Amino acid sequence: MRPSGRKTDQMRKVSFERNVSKHAEGSCLVKFGDTHVLCTASLEEKTPPWLRNSGKGWVTAEYGMLPRATGDRMKREAAAGKQGGRTQEIQRLIGRSLRAVIDLEALGEKQITVDCDVIQADGGTRTAAITGGWIALHDCLKWMEARNMIKLERVLKDHVAAISCGIFAGQSVIDLDYLEDSAAETDANFVMTGSGGIVEVQGTAEGKPFTRDELLGLLDLAAAGTAELVALQKQAIA
Amino acid sequence: MRPSGRKTDQMRKVSFERNVSKHAEGSCLVKFGDTHVLCTASLEEKTPPWLRNSGKGWVTAEYGMLPRATGDRMKREAAAGKQGGRTQEIQRLIGRSLRAVIDLEALGEKQITVDCDVIQADGGTRTAAITGGWIALHDCLKWMEARNMIKLERVLKDHVAAISCGIFAGQSVIDLDYLEDSAAETDANFVMTGSGGIVEVQGTAEGKPFTRDELLGLLDLAAAGTAELVALQKQAIA
Amino acid sequence: MRPSGRKTDQMRKVSFERNVSKHAEGSCLVKFGDTHVLCTASLEEKTPPWLRNSGKGWVTAEYGMLPRATGDRMKREAAAGKQGGRTQEIQRLIGRSLRAVIDLEALGEKQITVDCDVIQADGGTRTAAITGGWIALHDCLKWMEARNMIKLERVLKDHVAAISCGIFAGQSVIDLDYLEDSAAETDANFVMTGSGGIVEVQGTAEGKPFTRDELLGLLDLAAAGTAELVALQKQAIA
Amino acid sequence: MRPSGRKTDQMRKVSFERNVSKHAEGSCLVKFGDTHVLCTASLEEKTPPWLRNSGKGWVTAEYGMLPRATGDRMKREAAAGKQGGRTQEIQRLIGRSLRAVIDLEALGEKQITVDCDVIQADGGTRTAAITGGWIALHDCLKWMEARNMIKLERVLKDHVAAISCGIFAGQSVIDLDYLEDSAAETDANFVMTGSGGIVEVQGTAEGKPFTRDELLGLLDLAAAGTAELVALQKQAIA
Amino acid sequence: MRPSGRKTDQMRKVSFERNVSKHAEGSCLVKFGDTHVLCTASLEEKTPPWLRNSGKGWVTAEYGMLPRATGDRMKREAAAGKQGGRTQEIQRLIGRSLRAVIDLEALGEKQITVDCDVIQADGGTRTAAITGGWIALHDCLKWMEARNMIKLERVLKDHVAAISCGIFAGQSVIDLDYLEDSAAETDANFVMTGSGGIVEVQGTAEGKPFTRDELLGLLDLAAAGTAELVALQKQAIA
Amino acid sequence: MRPSGRKTDQMRKVSFERNVSKHAEGSCLVKFGDTHVLCTASLEEKTPPWLRNSGKGWVTAEYGMLPRATGDRMKREAAAGKQGGRTQEIQRLIGRSLRAVIDLEALGEKQITVDCDVIQADGGTRTAAITGGWIALHDCLKWMEARNMIKLERVLKDHVAAISCGIFAGQSVIDLDYLEDSAAETDANFVMTGSGGIVEVQGTAEGKPFTRDELLGLLDLAAAGTAELVALQKQAIA
Repeated sequence: MRPSGRKTDQMRKVSFERNVSKHAEGSCLVKFGDTHVLCTASLEEKTPPWLRNSGKGWVTAEYGMLPRATGDRMKREAAAGKQGGRTQEIQRLIGRSLRAVIDLEALGEKQITVDCDVIQADGGTRTAAITGGWIALHDCLKWMEARNMIKLERVLKDHVAAISCGIFAGQSVIDLDYLEDSAAETDANFVMTGSGGIVEVQGTAEGKPFTRDELLGLLDLAAAGTAELVALQKQAIA
Repeated sequence: MRPSGRKTDQMRKVSFERNVSKHAEGSCLVKFGDTHVLCTASLEEKTPPWLRNSGKGWVTAEYGMLPRATGDRMKREAAAGKQGGRTQEIQRLIGRSLRAVIDLEALGEKQITVDCDVIQADGGTRTAAITGGWIALHDCLKWMEARNMIKLERVLKDHVAAISCGIFAGQSVIDLDYLEDSAAETDANFVMTGSGGIVEVQGTAEGKPFTRDELLGLLDLAAAGTAELVALQKQAIA
Repeated sequence: MRPSGRKTDQMRKVSFERNVSKHAEGSCLVKFGDTHVLCTASLEEKTPPWLRNSGKGWVTAEYGMLPRATGDRMKREAAAGKQGGRTQEIQRLIGRSLRAVIDLEALGEKQITVDCDVIQADGGTRTAAITGGWIALHDCLKWMEARNMIKLERVLKDHVAAISCGIFAGQSVIDLDYLEDSAAETDANFVMTGSGGIVEVQGTAEGKPFTRDELLGLLDLAAAGTAELVALQKQAIA
Repeated sequence: MRPSGRKTDQMRKVSFERNVSKHAEGSCLVKFGDTHVLCTASLEEKTPPWLRNSGKGWVTAEYGMLPRATGDRMKREAAAGKQGGRTQEIQRLIGRSLRAVIDLEALGEKQITVDCDVIQADGGTRTAAITGGWIALHDCLKWMEARNMIKLERVLKDHVAAISCGIFAGQSVIDLDYLEDSAAETDANFVMTGSGGIVEVQGTAEGKPFTRDELLGLLDLAAAGTAELVALQKQAIA
Repeated sequence: MRPSGRKTDQMRKVSFERNVSKHAEGSCLVKFGDTHVLCTASLEEKTPPWLRNSGKGWVTAEYGMLPRATGDRMKREAAAGKQGGRTQEIQRLIGRSLRAVIDLEALGEKQITVDCDVIQADGGTRTAAITGGWIALHDCLKWMEARNMIKLERVLKDHVAAISCGIFAGQSVIDLDYLEDSAAETDANFVMTGSGGIVEVQGTAEGKPFTRDELLGLLDLAAAGTAELVALQKQAIA
Repeated sequence: MRPSGRKTDQMRKVSFERNVSKHAEGSCLVKFGDTHVLCTASLEEKTPPWLRNSGKGWVTAEYGMLPRATGDRMKREAAAGKQGGRTQEIQRLIGRSLRAVIDLEALGEKQITVDCDVIQADGGTRTAAITGGWIALHDCLKWMEARNMIKLERVLKDHVAAISCGIFAGQSVIDLDYLEDSAAETDANFVMTGSGGIVEVQGTAEGKPFTRDELLGLLDLAAAGTAELVALQKQAIA
């Protein structure tokens, strides 16, 4: 029995609220249950130094948590003077995931930064950030298309969505909340495209090692879950 | 004529949404027009080193802006590796303002940290933070009272609220938005209590110096404005 | 009765020693009683990035305290690896105050940095820094005029001086020393020009809130005090 | 055809040189072809704060690269003033992987830090670090057993080894060197135990997304490869 | 011919002004010509962690330069966020030199920090700092003796003084000023005690290597110079 | 009697292993007994800003210790966020020493960075680093000569080698190992050229001050020792 009473293959209620920022070219408040992440996509003319005069653009992501997004207040990273290892790991993952569906040449020499700030955390912040970040990125590209800067369908090649799966109390479950996450034996994050391709798999045994079959079981749950998320993305941008 | 069409003594629409955080002991999403600040109050057992064994508690504040809270994306302070001078100045001001209405001995050896994170900025973020921060602090103290940790009325001595006033296009106006703020000749922030006492005055001539009479004019606008804010706080916590 | 035996409207003995640095284009050792601040003005060809090719120059300030300028030794900020919030707040204030009397276009694309280093502290270091910093800045501009780089009277529009006033033991007093400062109920710093305009007001209730009338009382003390400081500046540069 | 002429399921020559450090309780210079990593295991009495008085110990890892371990000299992280995101990601992975086979209660309140410093890099530094780090950790525990501090077989529950697999030029290959790694379409790292359990899977599509079958193909290569590495570890410690 | 017209064995005018700080237990403004260093000695109850409960005390030094102590303004180290290599090298030298004449056991579990801040630089700041730092340290110990905390003659075993010598324009000269220092072929700093013992020698060939005889020549100049400095110290504290 | 049983004028066994790095233009693993330092010389096109368009090149050095190079594990400087004072002091010394035998104009506008990473420490790491760094630098220059970038004999003017000498148990000894170093009364490092010139002398009294004659005794030991090191360098590059 899951603490939330959900079925093993049942995700939390997912919602996307678009245009939540007056300033950003694209924005989305994504909720996976009590996990709320504000995603904004910002267009900038400058690209990273290594792409200067390459004709290519760049999509990158930054991730942060408000200090009291969590049960206990965490030290503010700006005050601590550095981003922790976990933060850096997550923002690198978000950036790679979003770039997987972008044609950087078609984007041209511009940079889009997707900021994912966790307003409230209850497990699965990175998967919510990727899934909502895609909406913000889409809307930013749409904003650019409206100004004849790009062709949206040439730049954005596919959807991308992410979900966590894990082994909790001996069962494979999807979309772990904090209670499950902190007690799971195995925890895995999957990033998949709209056409079902795998962009990223990260599976970690928290307790005892897992098997090939268990990994496949989690992958199958994730394939169904990300397909559902992509369907919700399609509704949201319709 | 103000860009927003407001009258000189007319504040923007102000609202307080309480209990916006699942985790924090007190929380409030405060809006002054398009300026939105999420305030959470977190109770911690530890106090700063200089208060150990003094019997006194502490109230402090931290301030941050999401990178795309503003028209142009700003560098994330956590990534920059330090909080800027403006951030530090503002969070020191918020902390002082809230402490002005707290009896630290009645609080006892505990610390409350009020985090004020600007979700969207359109001028007046520090005044919104103080005004909304008071609600979050109040709710945290109420949470403590419900657990017999304190007597709310002994710890929280009064309301505190803040408003900016300035001289814009030759006229004294209240609650400047970003367009006014960036063009104002004089910009002043006032922090006042429910009983009308002044906690803090910070007036700066951006262009030519201002006069004694101009300062008084701004102060009178602020006294009316903070009285209105205190009335709204009372409604919000009723 | 003030600890120093001064009358409520009596400032400490103020002196300016010019040309104390062999290297700086302008320099001044300013003393407000036992508060001693060494101010140097350094001319540099470079301006901040946001002014490149604007035709405008810049005046900025940095502030520091020697570790044993105070009663207890403070940690050296260079060793701590960052400037504290108080330091940043003060140096931003000094910079704004000096820029208030400078025509940045008439200065041309140059930067003058006024370093204010507290050799010995006894309250009022920021007001001494502004008042003495004006002398260093004046002398730097005079040095430039002697080399036909600028016209002094076109760049330097007025005097600027600063003084602290506060409510100590129930009375409004001017130019608080450390003993008064640490026990004051209200503490306010005023920056005013030679023509009596107000450049900056920063008033803070340390204990109970203050009233409109108390603020006016402090302002009146400050107006008289800064007029006296401007007269002393005039003597010093004569 | 692989650049090195290896078969798709052929790892590079792997060697372990034990006791390479005069000082460390355990040490191993591990080579996967031209990738050379020096691993030392250091025993310390202190544990992290969150384990104080828990009776449990801790195993952690740090990772670094000498500046000229790579084709182009990289900036020294100590001089840059921080560890990059990649470094932190890798050292977190090494630590988790090694802890997966340690009984922290049986270790008792001690900390072992495994430092993995890349002397020369040619792809696969993290997998070499995990595989060689296990030897250093084993030897440190053996050192402790010789002093009656622990029972080796109670603390060290299994072997752990790691290998990268990827899709290069359309084919699934094992143990990618730098030339392959920088051109691979998919890159995955697998950490597995001596008994064939999976501790960690990290697969990333560098170009187009990969499929369930491709992931399984890589996993099968990795299972064979890590089995071979475990056999080599057994020889090395015999 | 030296730029200053001094003879090869002639030091600049050296002066010590004691008790220049209202707060410090010992203080001295030392001048070697146009090189002016403010030295304060601060007594603190705490010792470094490695001396806790050892019965021994510690003497340490910190060194800094005001940004415009030099011909061109240097970046403020506190703003830069770290002390440069030169600063650290110098403050370690000052600390070692002063500790060479202190009996740390006789001092007892206390720490004295000697801050040496260069107000104006014209070559030889580190030697002036050591020589003047000794006076500040002496006065701090005298302050302690007056409070029956120590016996001065048991703690302070000897004088220590320092001087630079170098080969300038082919000649061995003493006490190089900035013009000489920046053009010297060889630059050496000597720290010696009142009884003529050598505490520290640091000689560096700036251009071509120097010989054994040249080193001896510099040492002989330094021996005479430090003897003179010790005589001046004796006068100063008489 | 020395702990190692060596005679007072007997260095440890010294060896140079060249070409230990697949990537670096020059490299050398130098061993002075149990002190092992990996030196790589990296050629870069960029020079420091102050040499742009000067026609001159630059040679610089960086120094680091692996965390467990020492008896007790030291904190990794990259994790600590800064290089300590000792590290900076040593790398500045290595850079100066190598530049003493380089004609920077003949090198042309290029930079060579010599990284000296201590793999294992047993006293004398800085002298080993200089002596082995010379080999790496030589090989880098030879690599450049092979590509017609420079004339080796015009750029590299001489050998440079370094050795520590000290007074241990009342006797002057050469090449102190850790046991001697930590107990020496006087510790001195000498850097000398192939033609016997002195590049750098750094002598420090750890206990009581030393005399002119003692310094001369150490210098004579060092002259013999560095001559021997230069002979070994010649064999190594033959």
